[in-house]
Amino acid sequence: MTKGKSLRDRRCVVLGGGGFIGTHLSRRLAGKVGSLRAFGRSENRPRALSGIEWLGGDFNDPRSIRGALEGCDVVFHLINASTPSSANLDKIGDLKSNVVSTIQLLDACVAAGVQRVIFVSSGGTVYGVPQSLPTREDDACWPITSYGISKLAIERYLHLYEYIHGLEYRILRVSNPFGPHQTAERDQGVIGAFLRRIINEQPIELWGDGSVSRDYLYVDDVIDAFELAMLHEGRSRVFNIGSGVSRTLNEVIAALENVTGKKIDIVRKDGRLVDIPVSVLDISRARNELGWIPKTEFDAGLRSTFQWLIETQ
Amino acid sequence: MTKGKSLRDRRCVVLGGGGFIGTHLSRRLAGKVGSLRAFGRSENRPRALSGIEWLGGDFNDPRSIRGALEGCDVVFHLINASTPSSANLDKIGDLKSNVVSTIQLLDACVAAGVQRVIFVSSGGTVYGVPQSLPTREDDACWPITSYGISKLAIERYLHLYEYIHGLEYRILRVSNPFGPHQTAERDQGVIGAFLRRIINEQPIELWGDGSVSRDYLYVDDVIDAFELAMLHEGRSRVFNIGSGVSRTLNEVIAALENVTGKKIDIVRKDGRLVDIPVSVLDISRARNELGWIPKTEFDAGLRSTFQWLIETQ
Repeated sequence: MTKGKSLRDRRCVVLGGGGFIGTHLSRRLAGKVGSLRAFGRSENRPRALSGIEWLGGDFNDPRSIRGALEGCDVVFHLINASTPSSANLDKIGDLKSNVVSTIQLLDACVAAGVQRVIFVSSGGTVYGVPQSLPTREDDACWPITSYGISKLAIERYLHLYEYIHGLEYRILRVSNPFGPHQTAERDQGVIGAFLRRIINEQPIELWGDGSVSRDYLYVDDVIDAFELAMLHEGRSRVFNIGSGVSRTLNEVIAALENVTGKKIDIVRKDGRLVDIPVSVLDISRARNELGWIPKTEFDAGLRSTFQWLIETQ
Repeated sequence: MTKGKSLRDRRCVVLGGGGFIGTHLSRRLAGKVGSLRAFGRSENRPRALSGIEWLGGDFNDPRSIRGALEGCDVVFHLINASTPSSANLDKIGDLKSNVVSTIQLLDACVAAGVQRVIFVSSGGTVYGVPQSLPTREDDACWPITSYGISKLAIERYLHLYEYIHGLEYRILRVSNPFGPHQTAERDQGVIGAFLRRIINEQPIELWGDGSVSRDYLYVDDVIDAFELAMLHEGRSRVFNIGSGVSRTLNEVIAALENVTGKKIDIVRKDGRLVDIPVSVLDISRARNELGWIPKTEFDAGLRSTFQWLIETQ
């Protein structure tokens, strides 16, 4: 069976289809897979999804989810009810809205005969303070945010459901994705946030001395990994998806000055406890087992994001 | 400061003080520590705790918990709302009654100025199908029961609260404890359950062919580990607490025949999916860092348990 043929066989639903990664994923899959539905909060439908079947609903409502799954065999689970910095403020709310809702989803998947769930986990938070750099999938996971604990718990329930019910899963621990369609509504995505302030000629707020480093990955590369995870038949279940390169905030700002041609004003603030100093993922498993490689140069990704923001703001 | 002096300084509460391990722990600590309170469901107070301060209440009720913590600096968290086999039947209920309630507990600990929480985790379930035998604390944790996932999530919240609030913690991943005071109410504790049936001259129900092996530890040895964890000042937070010896069910039955002097009737049933084939813990970290060793010979532990059952049934 060729890869093209396989994709054509899949009937997919993207949960969180109106979000940043969900929008890109839905656009990529449309026309490639047998059928595609994007699901998300009713008010959240992006114009970028025109021509794609959209179902508005509430992820916490089992009836909504049953409707979303109808006739699907591949489920992309991209829903986050919180962000790394907001989750700690309401740990119980975070646990309920993310983990409890996902258990309901998995029960619905089993009932609906779904074949595979692909879950976007968080390469930047599940490991906590990294045991080694770059961090491997099998390294210790002791998150320092409630957000990371919820992601980790969901990963474990996925494993349990495959063990008990045969519901296949793949977990993509995505690092720090950036690109077009990353909205400013939530405080994820430092690159988009910085670019917005540059375009609006506002200073950038920088927590700490700018030495905090992260593994930034352009969104097109993330979507490549989702496609490959849908067809993967090997034994591994968890894949780090990052650039494999660590960049400090100071380096990001220098790159943004270069790409935008503007001098950036910086307002420095105290470091935050949720910020681990360094995060960079070992991506050799995804390279070897998914055949995935990140293709987009960092500056090229910044330029696309900048261009999109100028056109849409 | 001598160890004796340190114990005298501690004001302790045992949450789940009416349970199997909680009863032993409360009895051991009484008179050794500065003050001691046992907390549990009102109807659950064992006669074995006479002379020990008892507070009845509901672990899920934050007001009950605030009362339990009052004036305490060491909290032993021994409460389980489920068992390994019951948890999968209501995963969401399990998550709420164990994990959500523990988050409430940890918030209350921070507010009350508690210094340290000692949590009994599950050496038999958090690792899932073991990555190596004997299993080390840093091995992969992919539970195959909802019970194990809840334990794992609680471990992670403990880590988060120390990171954010400085609330100290120690985690004891206890293997399969047995001994007096293990009640038959819940389906934990195969040794107690077998002994009861032997005493009542009933046949034993055996799931699978009896080759399933576990790491059985006499309860007195478990309590030693709790005492040491209360005073531990090293860097490790997680300790396997087991015998380090793997015994098959068939070997357990042979030992029980030897200790009780009775021939045991066996009714064989199909194996259960929640039963991993082998579980045995690497206890070198607890030996090296806590200075703990299991002292009770298996047969001696069986004899004490048998004796207690005969006297109390």
